[in-house]
Amino acid sequence: MSARRPRVLVVGAGFGGLRVARALRHAPVDVLLVDRGNVHVFQPLLYQVATAGLSVDNVTRPVRAIFRRQRNVAFRMAEVTGLDLGARTAATPDGPLPWDFLVLAAGGGTNFFGNTGLAAHSLGLKEVEDAVRVRNHVLRRFEQAAITMEEARRRELLTLVLVGGGPTGIELAGALAELAHLVLAREYAGLHPGEIRILLLEMGTRLLPALPEKLGSYALRSLTRKGVEVRFGVRVEGYDGRVVELGGGERLPAGTLLWAAGIRASHLLAGLGLPLGPQGRIPVLPSLQVNGHPQVYAIGDAAYLEQDGQALPMVAQVAMQMGVHAAMNIQRQLRREKPRPFRYRDLGTMATIGRRAAVAHLAGIELTGLVAWIAWLALHVVQLIGYRNRVVVLVNWAWNYLFYDPANRRIGPE
Amino acid sequence: MSARRPRVLVVGAGFGGLRVARALRHAPVDVLLVDRGNVHVFQPLLYQVATAGLSVDNVTRPVRAIFRRQRNVAFRMAEVTGLDLGARTAATPDGPLPWDFLVLAAGGGTNFFGNTGLAAHSLGLKEVEDAVRVRNHVLRRFEQAAITMEEARRRELLTLVLVGGGPTGIELAGALAELAHLVLAREYAGLHPGEIRILLLEMGTRLLPALPEKLGSYALRSLTRKGVEVRFGVRVEGYDGRVVELGGGERLPAGTLLWAAGIRASHLLAGLGLPLGPQGRIPVLPSLQVNGHPQVYAIGDAAYLEQDGQALPMVAQVAMQMGVHAAMNIQRQLRREKPRPFRYRDLGTMATIGRRAAVAHLAGIELTGLVAWIAWLALHVVQLIGYRNRVVVLVNWAWNYLFYDPANRRIGPE
Repeated sequence: MSARRPRVLVVGAGFGGLRVARALRHAPVDVLLVDRGNVHVFQPLLYQVATAGLSVDNVTRPVRAIFRRQRNVAFRMAEVTGLDLGARTAATPDGPLPWDFLVLAAGGGTNFFGNTGLAAHSLGLKEVEDAVRVRNHVLRRFEQAAITMEEARRRELLTLVLVGGGPTGIELAGALAELAHLVLAREYAGLHPGEIRILLLEMGTRLLPALPEKLGSYALRSLTRKGVEVRFGVRVEGYDGRVVELGGGERLPAGTLLWAAGIRASHLLAGLGLPLGPQGRIPVLPSLQVNGHPQVYAIGDAAYLEQDGQALPMVAQVAMQMGVHAAMNIQRQLRREKPRPFRYRDLGTMATIGRRAAVAHLAGIELTGLVAWIAWLALHVVQLIGYRNRVVVLVNWAWNYLFYDPANRRIGPE
Repeated sequence: MSARRPRVLVVGAGFGGLRVARALRHAPVDVLLVDRGNVHVFQPLLYQVATAGLSVDNVTRPVRAIFRRQRNVAFRMAEVTGLDLGARTAATPDGPLPWDFLVLAAGGGTNFFGNTGLAAHSLGLKEVEDAVRVRNHVLRRFEQAAITMEEARRRELLTLVLVGGGPTGIELAGALAELAHLVLAREYAGLHPGEIRILLLEMGTRLLPALPEKLGSYALRSLTRKGVEVRFGVRVEGYDGRVVELGGGERLPAGTLLWAAGIRASHLLAGLGLPLGPQGRIPVLPSLQVNGHPQVYAIGDAAYLEQDGQALPMVAQVAMQMGVHAAMNIQRQLRREKPRPFRYRDLGTMATIGRRAAVAHLAGIELTGLVAWIAWLALHVVQLIGYRNRVVVLVNWAWNYLFYDPANRRIGPE
């Protein structure tokens, strides 16, 4: 290596990529962070954008603003389309980007498991566009229902089906139920509130399967109280935009199908010429390096790694911890030290179920109800990137809590 | 008329349409308000959306939420495509809407005076989509410039031309100059701030021609201090997305052309079968009724009316006053009284020129600088529809004022 500082190319400005760049702030390297968007997205709050509680700008922050004061980070808005592992460059439409170390942190997307009908007609919740689409779609269905005379068609438009009983499905179901029953039912004079129906379908036998049983049953009671019908052991096989096909032949007319039943790694990875594992993720060594390519790391949703015989989950916490670890191992490599194996420490899981209700599993302690909700609120406000967003989001939330007025409801172009 | 209450159909939920519906709150009528969007847009702040200071949700409010408590108003999201003046119905894609009284309050749009090149490549600022487009466009130009090696091309990308020295052009120029010089110049490490150029072109001989001379020269000094080049007596003849053609053959390379030099009435009016006047507006009687159609009113940008030999301007104030007046005349007609002529009272004009600088002409008094800016701020915060928006907008502004951090900068899909 010459006098030039080593170049670290980080692909993706999500939770993982951001942590890599930050953890390298004192390292003698030049970091280039690339993302196809110009903002970091605070994904855990996307469901609030989808349900009109927050606006897109509340949950996004320009990457350039985040790193304004960190001198060794540059940003570029670009889509990586391929890799040349020999020449150590990444291809983009504007030309190749050279690297000495590469960190793949491209995140994940919704997994429809190859079901093209589902992919075409149902809505995911992994990206900003998804959240905006959900909001537009649901509000449009209400507008259509308001002018529909035929009862069966109106009921179809007002039936929202969510698939997946994990944290995303639960948070979305709770927020949608409040939006529909507390706000929309009041504002659409011609509609019978009884015609609004929100169903949460889960293939397994309980909600929040990754958490202790008690939290799953609390979530079930809480959602039921909010008017969500929860059904277990139901398999969704198809959707054409009007009828959901369930396993066993049942057909459920519904104007909206929200899919929170699967995630996969970014499609970007498929074009890189690296072998892919389950969910399209790149298998990595315990050091987070890609086997055979010691200068290439994969982290977060992009990486497949097992710990104690189980694949690490595709969640923000794993991505953040891996980001810090990859940055440390790169610095070790620069000092000609051996990279260390990564070990995930589960700090806990939380999910809200509308206002004043949440479940949390933190350091072995199980919390439910208002206490869990306050813990959730505090953690998310503290974590929100950018002080401005924090203040604005807090004001939004305080207002919503006092007056329940999810006002971010403009229906955008389709 | 039978026992059924008379139906008042209001087309457009802008400043005019909203005032009509509100002013009819105690009248024995059923109001149906229709708009092709589901929100009321606070247009005077769109330039702040265009320059990343506010988000779309800050300046819009669901029409249904606004009228939640007014029993005799119903809302429908629909585009009116024609009128049957004999049958007294308005056509929409979802079927005809009957009326006993009709108020056309469809607002206005950008006027490119038939120049198709300008219409295709330059950006207006009359609608939410315009503001979002301006923000995306300007930020994209900066991202492109950051990876452009060739100096001439980079300078082109960083040249922003605004056309029109009225309030919109001035507000936009001031806010863009602050965004570009205070924020973007800091965050794009590779760019030379000296390559950023913002020009404001005005065909006449001074800024703010509708206001006293003193205010125009204050605006000129203020913009110049912020780094805006103001040129007078310049006529823009065309734009192809890269080069602005000026009268006299001058060619000005520029990546962005913002057009604030003309407005016209909504294109919707052209399909109604009513005669149109200047700017595509419908000529109305002093009572705001359409000649020959005593049950049909037109107000705001949709109406053409002269007062003391001058056409009333296409501004929010005129629309609001006309809205209240049309509602009064409809009630007079119901009581079989003669409609009264409308008389516009100019309450004054204001325009901001970035932070801490503004001009105001109120009740004959001319204000400039900080005093005018505070007056502007107070008025706009008070006028903002919806208490929630007011609080959130205030927090945004307070934050921006203290730290200057226009963070609403996500580049959306093109």
